[in-house]
Amino acid sequence: MEQEALPLVGTLGLAAVSVGLPGLPARVFAGDVGSLHVTVVVNGKDPAHDGVDCVGTVAASLTTYAAAQAYNPCLVLNAGTAGGFDAKGGAICDVYVASRVAFHDRRIQLPGFDKYGVGMVDTVSAPALVAATGWKTGVVSTSDSLDHTPACDVQMTANDASVKEMEAAAVAFTARMLGLPFMAIKVITDLVDHGAETPEQFMENLGRASAMLATAVPIAIRHIAGRSLDDL
Amino acid sequence: MEQEALPLVGTLGLAAVSVGLPGLPARVFAGDVGSLHVTVVVNGKDPAHDGVDCVGTVAASLTTYAAAQAYNPCLVLNAGTAGGFDAKGGAICDVYVASRVAFHDRRIQLPGFDKYGVGMVDTVSAPALVAATGWKTGVVSTSDSLDHTPACDVQMTANDASVKEMEAAAVAFTARMLGLPFMAIKVITDLVDHGAETPEQFMENLGRASAMLATAVPIAIRHIAGRSLDDL
Repeated sequence: MEQEALPLVGTLGLAAVSVGLPGLPARVFAGDVGSLHVTVVVNGKDPAHDGVDCVGTVAASLTTYAAAQAYNPCLVLNAGTAGGFDAKGGAICDVYVASRVAFHDRRIQLPGFDKYGVGMVDTVSAPALVAATGWKTGVVSTSDSLDHTPACDVQMTANDASVKEMEAAAVAFTARMLGLPFMAIKVITDLVDHGAETPEQFMENLGRASAMLATAVPIAIRHIAGRSLDDL
Repeated sequence: MEQEALPLVGTLGLAAVSVGLPGLPARVFAGDVGSLHVTVVVNGKDPAHDGVDCVGTVAASLTTYAAAQAYNPCLVLNAGTAGGFDAKGGAICDVYVASRVAFHDRRIQLPGFDKYGVGMVDTVSAPALVAATGWKTGVVSTSDSLDHTPACDVQMTANDASVKEMEAAAVAFTARMLGLPFMAIKVITDLVDHGAETPEQFMENLGRASAMLATAVPIAIRHIAGRSLDDL
C-alpha cells in the first residue's frame, strides 16, 4: 500500500520515476542511498476500484516480475506491514526479518502439489542485521485475506508462522523463478491471536507501523551496503 | 497443467516454440489455425518441485503478463479443467464459457478492498458460441486451493459460481490491467457438491476432460475467427 511505502520513500530520499512498469499501475521511486541504488516499487491503485491499492499475491507477483525485468536488481526486499502473534512474543510495531516465507491458503491435495502450494522458500535472513538491531525473526506466512479461517490457522501453525501478511510468499516465488535473492522486513500492525479484530487493529496502527518501517528499512539498507549476502 | 494443454496443442496442430518467456518455466506452442495465429502458453513445471506444474493464481498471472508482453494478443483465452456444481446442473465433461470471473478466497474487510478482493470481472461471454454449441455458461470462481472451506462456500454462493477452479480470476485481472479482452473455457473434471472427494474425481476424470477441452477449444477458435468480440 502507498500508505506503507510513502514514509519510507521520504526517509530514503527517493524521487518519483515518471516511467512506470509496462501495463501496470505501479509507482516507482528511485535514488542512491549511500553506495546502493535503491528502487522502491508499489503496486499502485486499481483503476477499477477507486483509491484501492492492488494488495495481495497476484498484484505483488506481477509488480515484482515487471520491476525485476526493468531494473535487474541484486536483491529483492519485500517491506510492509503485517500481523503478529502474541503467542510468538510479537507486539505492535515490532520489526521482523523473515527467516522463511510460505503460503497458508493454498491447499492442493495432490502428491507434490501439496508442498508446491505451501511454497516454503528460504530467504536472505540477515542474522547479523537481526543481532545488531534487536529485531525479531521468524516465518512470514502469506494469504490473500486479511482474516484467517480455521484452515488458515492449521497451515500457519504448520508453517511455524510468526508473521501473517498478504504478499511475501508470492514475491519470493517470483524472485526464486528469476534467480534473485529475496529478503522480507515486516512491521507489526495487529496481533492475529490477541485484542480487537484485525481490520480495527490494522487501521489503528497502520500509521505508526509505517513510520517504523520508514525507520527500519534505511537501517537495513545501510547494513546491506558493502556486505555479501552471506554476511548480512 | 501440461496434461490439460497437450491434447489441445495436438488438435490445434501447434508447434513448440523454443524461446520461452523471460525467467519463467513456461512452455509455448504456436501456429496458425485458419485465419488466426494461436499461441498456447502453459505455466510449466516448478524447478524446485520435481514434476509439479505451476498451478494457481500467482504463476498464472505471471505467465499471462509475460506472454502478453511477448505476443501482444488480441484476446486472452484461459482454457482448463475445473470443478462444477450438481446444484447448478453441472456434469462431468460439461463445457462452460465464463459469463464473469471472481475470487472466492480473498477476504479483505476494509472499505473498497472487499470488492477488490472478490475481483469480479466481466468476460467475453460469447453468447452466440454458447447458443451454437449447447455449452453452458456461468460464473467461474477462483481460489488457490483444490478444496473449499465454509468461507469459500459463502463467497462462491455470493459469486453465484457455476464453476470452481484455480486461475481464471487472476488471468482476468492481469488481462484487465493490460487492457486485453478476456474469455475463459472450462471443462468439468469433478463436482464440488456431489460424489467423491475432489482429488479422486479430478484424477479420475482429468484425461477425459482434457480430451473434451482439446475438442472444444478448436471449435471456439473457429467461431472467434472473423468475428468481432461483440458478435461472439
